[in-house]
Amino acid sequence: MLAERLNRLGTETAFAVSLAAAEWAAKGNKVFPFHLGDINLPTPANVVEAMNRAIADGKTGYCAAAGIAGLREALADDVSMRRGLRYGAENVVVQPGGKPVIGKFLQVVMNPGDGVLFPSPGYPIYESQIEYFGGLAQPYRYTQTATGFAIDLDHLRSQITPATKVLIYNNLQNPLGCESSPEEMSAIAEVARLHDLQVLSDEAYFEMRYSGTSSSIASLPEMQTRTVILYTFSKKFAMTGWRLGAAIGPSEIIAQIAKINTNDESCTTHFVQEAGIEALTGDQSGSRAILAELERRRDAAVDQLQQVPGFGVAKPESTFYLFPNVTTAMATMGFTDVAEFADAALRATGVSFCTRRHFGRPLPGETEQYVRFAYSGISVDDIQQGLGKLRRWIEAA
Amino acid sequence: MLAERLNRLGTETAFAVSLAAAEWAAKGNKVFPFHLGDINLPTPANVVEAMNRAIADGKTGYCAAAGIAGLREALADDVSMRRGLRYGAENVVVQPGGKPVIGKFLQVVMNPGDGVLFPSPGYPIYESQIEYFGGLAQPYRYTQTATGFAIDLDHLRSQITPATKVLIYNNLQNPLGCESSPEEMSAIAEVARLHDLQVLSDEAYFEMRYSGTSSSIASLPEMQTRTVILYTFSKKFAMTGWRLGAAIGPSEIIAQIAKINTNDESCTTHFVQEAGIEALTGDQSGSRAILAELERRRDAAVDQLQQVPGFGVAKPESTFYLFPNVTTAMATMGFTDVAEFADAALRATGVSFCTRRHFGRPLPGETEQYVRFAYSGISVDDIQQGLGKLRRWIEAA
Repeated sequence: MLAERLNRLGTETAFAVSLAAAEWAAKGNKVFPFHLGDINLPTPANVVEAMNRAIADGKTGYCAAAGIAGLREALADDVSMRRGLRYGAENVVVQPGGKPVIGKFLQVVMNPGDGVLFPSPGYPIYESQIEYFGGLAQPYRYTQTATGFAIDLDHLRSQITPATKVLIYNNLQNPLGCESSPEEMSAIAEVARLHDLQVLSDEAYFEMRYSGTSSSIASLPEMQTRTVILYTFSKKFAMTGWRLGAAIGPSEIIAQIAKINTNDESCTTHFVQEAGIEALTGDQSGSRAILAELERRRDAAVDQLQQVPGFGVAKPESTFYLFPNVTTAMATMGFTDVAEFADAALRATGVSFCTRRHFGRPLPGETEQYVRFAYSGISVDDIQQGLGKLRRWIEAA
Repeated sequence: MLAERLNRLGTETAFAVSLAAAEWAAKGNKVFPFHLGDINLPTPANVVEAMNRAIADGKTGYCAAAGIAGLREALADDVSMRRGLRYGAENVVVQPGGKPVIGKFLQVVMNPGDGVLFPSPGYPIYESQIEYFGGLAQPYRYTQTATGFAIDLDHLRSQITPATKVLIYNNLQNPLGCESSPEEMSAIAEVARLHDLQVLSDEAYFEMRYSGTSSSIASLPEMQTRTVILYTFSKKFAMTGWRLGAAIGPSEIIAQIAKINTNDESCTTHFVQEAGIEALTGDQSGSRAILAELERRRDAAVDQLQQVPGFGVAKPESTFYLFPNVTTAMATMGFTDVAEFADAALRATGVSFCTRRHFGRPLPGETEQYVRFAYSGISVDDIQQGLGKLRRWIEAA
């Protein structure tokens, strides 16, 4: 009775971690939620006020499938300015969140049988949508470095076949918290040019950084015309539940994504788009406060995790994820299965986190064990309390 | 460079009418907008207030892909009560509008090559999504009656082949404004049972009626298990731009649609869902006022159109559409192309409307000419003024 294509549809297994955490909490236990990439901070008040002005002004009816003109222009200006590029409104199509860009981009550029390079560990929806729409999933891996992680360029190049048509690139990476060096980004761009690949640059965390500045692969030579940028309001403005994002790229691809919008959600919530204009062009103190709070949490979480015996973790300058190597801790405690380790940690300490398995199938040759801590949904006090309990649990083993 | 599947993707050509109207207005002309199925009335204040309480309460983060529990339960209760059926929260998946239900339902129940019966004239996204996901579009037609339109059951049955697996049924119909007699609905259900068809019952206008009560094909014997209901908040609560709807049906189909949500929009805007609970369970005076205003507009529009020479139009008890037969008027004025007639009417009178062509390809044997007037986005005064000008233009011909 169900269509065969559903056999190719994946999901976010991280939701199972949320369920386990909720069940553990329902039994009266305190849970320290490091599993969710959600933000427990309020959306800036000026953004909420702009939304209410829009409602009072009658912006409760349909709007254009590609988004309202004011938001498309504001996004074009903002993304152009921060990336040193020139985009116009015709290069922007508004979406109900950043995530829909993944599937819609693939529908527009990928034929069945086309190979798509994508990061593993990485956001699990990449692989799900590649396979759902009939593509060939070609994962590329990362190697651990002294300061974090780097793309294994040899491995990436070895994955390329004549079928390879698309590359998904997520700089400021979820779950790794890493970013490309200029050399690494240049090498990725060179691969894209050499093999004439269409690129999805998932820049969800572009402005979620505590030092330095981000750059986009779209800014490298001959890359703007082959790259679609995934933009989201979710992180910078604590708007995850608002569902507001955009695809930004070549106008002929953007027009096709808009046509998919017409067939799917019609348009993104009208007054939420008006709020998005305020978020981009209004007072920025709210987003600065969000980032400052996340930096305090990062410092607390890194400080605590670096004290856990058998954990190896770098201090990333971006995203709100930490991806410690827990191989030694697991071996010391007698765990061979990272899922069992995570489950035991929840039951012993209330600390809830995802593992490498929630971000794609392990690749051949992977021997180290990793878990992911998100510090976007937990206070500094709870970070210290929870990770202190985790440390003492492992110390006692 | 663009994927081949895009060649199968249709659109809503009615947006071209909006564009023509906007261009005409930009030249300083008064336009009477009968082309859009949007509502120019405010959303009830209690719904907006509930949304703001939800935001103040921190409902700005992600929520479950299937929707928040409270809204799923409220929808299950409401739909159960109005249709004499029993649904639970597990039968409900929230969507960003009613429209996404069409494509997601087809993805879940339709394999490539499966035949899908759908109404023509009808909402153009049916055919677009059938063909986009590789199905075989099998349109069924309507016949004009003394009181409106009826499904041509013989034609519908003649369209069925061994490939036919799905039936799309839109009672309280857009663009026809008609509804099935009990006998007609029974005959459609009999076809579905006989050929073991999965049914999408598009009930977007279920509660948009001025007398009588609606019934659902899901309420007929052995139909609930094979039917998914398309529900939307757009019309009843003047929430078109909010993007809130749902699919309601067998839990195994609903679970798959939720999995598609996880891959696509993640979830529907969190605080908009909270507002939906208030819309369903709170004070109903707002929705009653919307319906009362639409009834005044219907009366004015029908009264005016029945005075136009060569126009034949019935008085529907539901939806906010009128679908006059304009064959005689066109012949009198020397038009053979209904698009040219509509364009001439805009330029002569400012009255903007869609034609039959915006609701699917004409079927073999169609000889009469029809246009669609929507009265949801125009005041009684403008209805009278605009249709008066249209009448005088045709009288003068």
